[in-house]
Amino acid sequence: MNRFDPIARVISLDLPIPSLSDNRSYELRLRAALENILGQRPLLPLNTCKVLPYVLPSSGYKIQTLLLYGRSEWKVIQVSAESRPLHPYGLAVDLGSTTVAFYLVDLCSGEIISTLSKTNPQSVHGEDILERILFAGQDNGLNSLQSDIVDLFNLSVREMAAVHGIGAEDICFITLAGNTTMCHLFLGLDPSHICREPYIPVVNRFDLIRPGEIGIDIHPHAWLYCFPNVGSYFGGDLLAGIMASGMHLKNEISMLVDMGTNAEVVLGNRDWLVACAGAAGPALEGGVLACGMSAQPGAIDRVDMDPNSLAVMFHTKDGKAPKGLCGSGIIDLLAAMFMAGLVDSTGRLVVDRDNPRLQQLNGEWIYVVADPHETGHGKPVYISQSDIKNLIRSKGAMYTILNVVTQSVGIDFKDIETFYVAGAFGNYIDPQKAVIIGMLPDIPLERFKALENAAGTGAVEALKNRNTGKEVEEICDRITYLEMNVRGDFMNQLTASLFLPHTDLSRFPSVADMMKG
Amino acid sequence: MNRFDPIARVISLDLPIPSLSDNRSYELRLRAALENILGQRPLLPLNTCKVLPYVLPSSGYKIQTLLLYGRSEWKVIQVSAESRPLHPYGLAVDLGSTTVAFYLVDLCSGEIISTLSKTNPQSVHGEDILERILFAGQDNGLNSLQSDIVDLFNLSVREMAAVHGIGAEDICFITLAGNTTMCHLFLGLDPSHICREPYIPVVNRFDLIRPGEIGIDIHPHAWLYCFPNVGSYFGGDLLAGIMASGMHLKNEISMLVDMGTNAEVVLGNRDWLVACAGAAGPALEGGVLACGMSAQPGAIDRVDMDPNSLAVMFHTKDGKAPKGLCGSGIIDLLAAMFMAGLVDSTGRLVVDRDNPRLQQLNGEWIYVVADPHETGHGKPVYISQSDIKNLIRSKGAMYTILNVVTQSVGIDFKDIETFYVAGAFGNYIDPQKAVIIGMLPDIPLERFKALENAAGTGAVEALKNRNTGKEVEEICDRITYLEMNVRGDFMNQLTASLFLPHTDLSRFPSVADMMKG
Repeated sequence: MNRFDPIARVISLDLPIPSLSDNRSYELRLRAALENILGQRPLLPLNTCKVLPYVLPSSGYKIQTLLLYGRSEWKVIQVSAESRPLHPYGLAVDLGSTTVAFYLVDLCSGEIISTLSKTNPQSVHGEDILERILFAGQDNGLNSLQSDIVDLFNLSVREMAAVHGIGAEDICFITLAGNTTMCHLFLGLDPSHICREPYIPVVNRFDLIRPGEIGIDIHPHAWLYCFPNVGSYFGGDLLAGIMASGMHLKNEISMLVDMGTNAEVVLGNRDWLVACAGAAGPALEGGVLACGMSAQPGAIDRVDMDPNSLAVMFHTKDGKAPKGLCGSGIIDLLAAMFMAGLVDSTGRLVVDRDNPRLQQLNGEWIYVVADPHETGHGKPVYISQSDIKNLIRSKGAMYTILNVVTQSVGIDFKDIETFYVAGAFGNYIDPQKAVIIGMLPDIPLERFKALENAAGTGAVEALKNRNTGKEVEEICDRITYLEMNVRGDFMNQLTASLFLPHTDLSRFPSVADMMKG
Repeated sequence: MNRFDPIARVISLDLPIPSLSDNRSYELRLRAALENILGQRPLLPLNTCKVLPYVLPSSGYKIQTLLLYGRSEWKVIQVSAESRPLHPYGLAVDLGSTTVAFYLVDLCSGEIISTLSKTNPQSVHGEDILERILFAGQDNGLNSLQSDIVDLFNLSVREMAAVHGIGAEDICFITLAGNTTMCHLFLGLDPSHICREPYIPVVNRFDLIRPGEIGIDIHPHAWLYCFPNVGSYFGGDLLAGIMASGMHLKNEISMLVDMGTNAEVVLGNRDWLVACAGAAGPALEGGVLACGMSAQPGAIDRVDMDPNSLAVMFHTKDGKAPKGLCGSGIIDLLAAMFMAGLVDSTGRLVVDRDNPRLQQLNGEWIYVVADPHETGHGKPVYISQSDIKNLIRSKGAMYTILNVVTQSVGIDFKDIETFYVAGAFGNYIDPQKAVIIGMLPDIPLERFKALENAAGTGAVEALKNRNTGKEVEEICDRITYLEMNVRGDFMNQLTASLFLPHTDLSRFPSVADMMKG
């Protein structure tokens, strides 16, 4: 996987000088020399041919050529005198619905020379995906969502290029990983059927696209590779994540979970791959909790509690005064409260009127994590009884999805050697706490591995290894997608997991031990 | 060769309707169905994908698809409801320096439904190729030569399309055969190195081109295939001629000669092919003769003479009053004069003061074919002594080229089973007369075969058979090109052929017989 065999190559040539006994055209002279090196005849677009009679003779036939790889063929996109060396760059993009991350890659060295993270400007037309799909259905909606993101690309390219003293036209390849809807909006494909039964995307497998076709200004002969999707709810971001994990090449069984409002799961190894996606709800990400927030400065992202004194310790993002709870903080908090006996296994707050943190608000019990005098906005940060119920539904759904997939192939959680946790929120959670609340399975903790920037890493990999597209295609071909909605056992299993950690405590032996201890 | 397997196909599909158990994307649904039929996965450009969510559901998944073949792949360029059938057309073009011939081909039937012949508008910048190459080197010269011809294409396409009630966008493939310079000017490639030693074209093998890239308005996803060339003086028109003759597939040996100012020759069979080109000069085409003209109305194109009475009979193009002599008329005339003893074997007019047709003009003997009172312009049509000398140099060069090529592979003219005569002027000549003057070899007359519209026929063939490009490529790969300029025996042989029919009469036994008789 880490072999460096990039999608662009610079080849220097010292071509034979034309003579009466070798009066091949400039084109054939160049093409034959490259064929010798590449083992296949490269494509030579008309625009490249046009410059040959100027560049070749004037350079003394000592030239550099820039080639791109696509559709199993090399294409010569630029020719220059040896004295004016060529240096290609690639742009890998993790196209998230909230954040778009750009990675500028030096295609000669494979190094990421710059990263840039921007808010997805489509947010103004809808915070979540469903809102954007609806907006796309309005007059000119799709066009305006597309141009929002295309403009962001062009601005970001110029910004990154300027910092490194290169031109936008030095970028000759874009690789892009995003969920199915994001890719559709980016390419101007109608997403309306994605959210309606039977949930059909327009495209599963994207052909290479010329960026200019959708208004992106980089090298005029550049290609854009968009990771394919396996379905409306199993996008290219996850396929890029599989690539980043390398699980599809390993003998042992791995599971990859992208945690978010939807849980997207892949299980398998080099021989088989099963995938599914299901709704976990926004509670785990903090989306619907009274004091929930995303992992911005001031978000409580770590919580610990002394089980005896019940003293609460927390950490905030960037050390700022607390404003709310983000996903990892919420899971830590619920785990700590459960282990301290503040919440029982059904998810009910155990009311102890001596505990000053237990208070009532609008007729509901809440547990205060940070007092108004500690917080950045003068209001308390707390978790309410109904928040906890929401959380338990979400963690139960998450666990059930993992369980259904695992059972569908007749294996047990303990057979999983590596458990990759991905997703903006997944990266930060403490697996032990997630096990305590019964969200993740009770396997040895060292088997959990956070997969940071999984989609971005996969996209970078696609720049660094020209066979990535083929490899991803093969993954798509052999992946079995389970439709969670049509599985009858899902609801039964969900009900059993609406407890802390689970109705069947034998599934969580380490948690049972802690509870005894 | 005549198998109909065109470069465009319309395939009707009744696609499976999406369901929860088959929720492949529109794209994959379509692609998989086509893969079943084609045996390979077709390309699906973004623009084709865009319409799928509208066309597929609204048509009840009963659709028609239009596919083009190029670079060993099929590409879906259009999708339509079954109720709106698709009907693709192709345009084959013989791009001559004087005349451009367009053939509109119905790609469903393979029929040529329309032909159109236009004067090459580049003529105003130079009658012959060399003048145009020089003009191309001037400021904006290449651009204006290119737009002249591109404009002609667009006008002609619209003209032909209108007559047949179709749109320009119904034309989805152009195949083009022309000489090396014409193709370069058409594509905007600098031709200046073609006419300077070592005579290098920019391109020998053209990749498929998008017509829109050079300003031709037909189907937005159309391809343009330009026949390759083997060198600066052996163009795609001749390769198309080889295709039209089928000589490269036959067991027996054939020779193909494209007669013009340059003689372009191919000799060979399915196992080997030798080619060369050499200057014959413009005399045979009438270009430099006092009364020479092209085959326009009023051109004397047939001449016969009673060897006893010396009465002259002639035929003019379109039966109009004579104005001059075109190529075939000139050859007929010289042959007749030689057989009648009016010209001796050295090419000298045999002066007989009793013959009223023998006159003097500006101190030179001339032979009058048509008197001023017979002609359309009140001046005589004649041939002069210096015209005859010119003619003999040209016919001698032509014969020598044929002879050098034949000798280079160690065969004899009698081993040639079929002798294809092509070229605007070649089509009209009477082979027997050409043999008499020693321009063509003395082989049985039934072996000569005029190849009319050879380049156009080859271009049409490329529309009707999608493997033509590959076949032509193979011809290019196995053709051996002889550089006439660098062969030492050329000049000696030329000297020997500056007689009527030749210094060595044993080479022309049938002519020797006629001379005796």
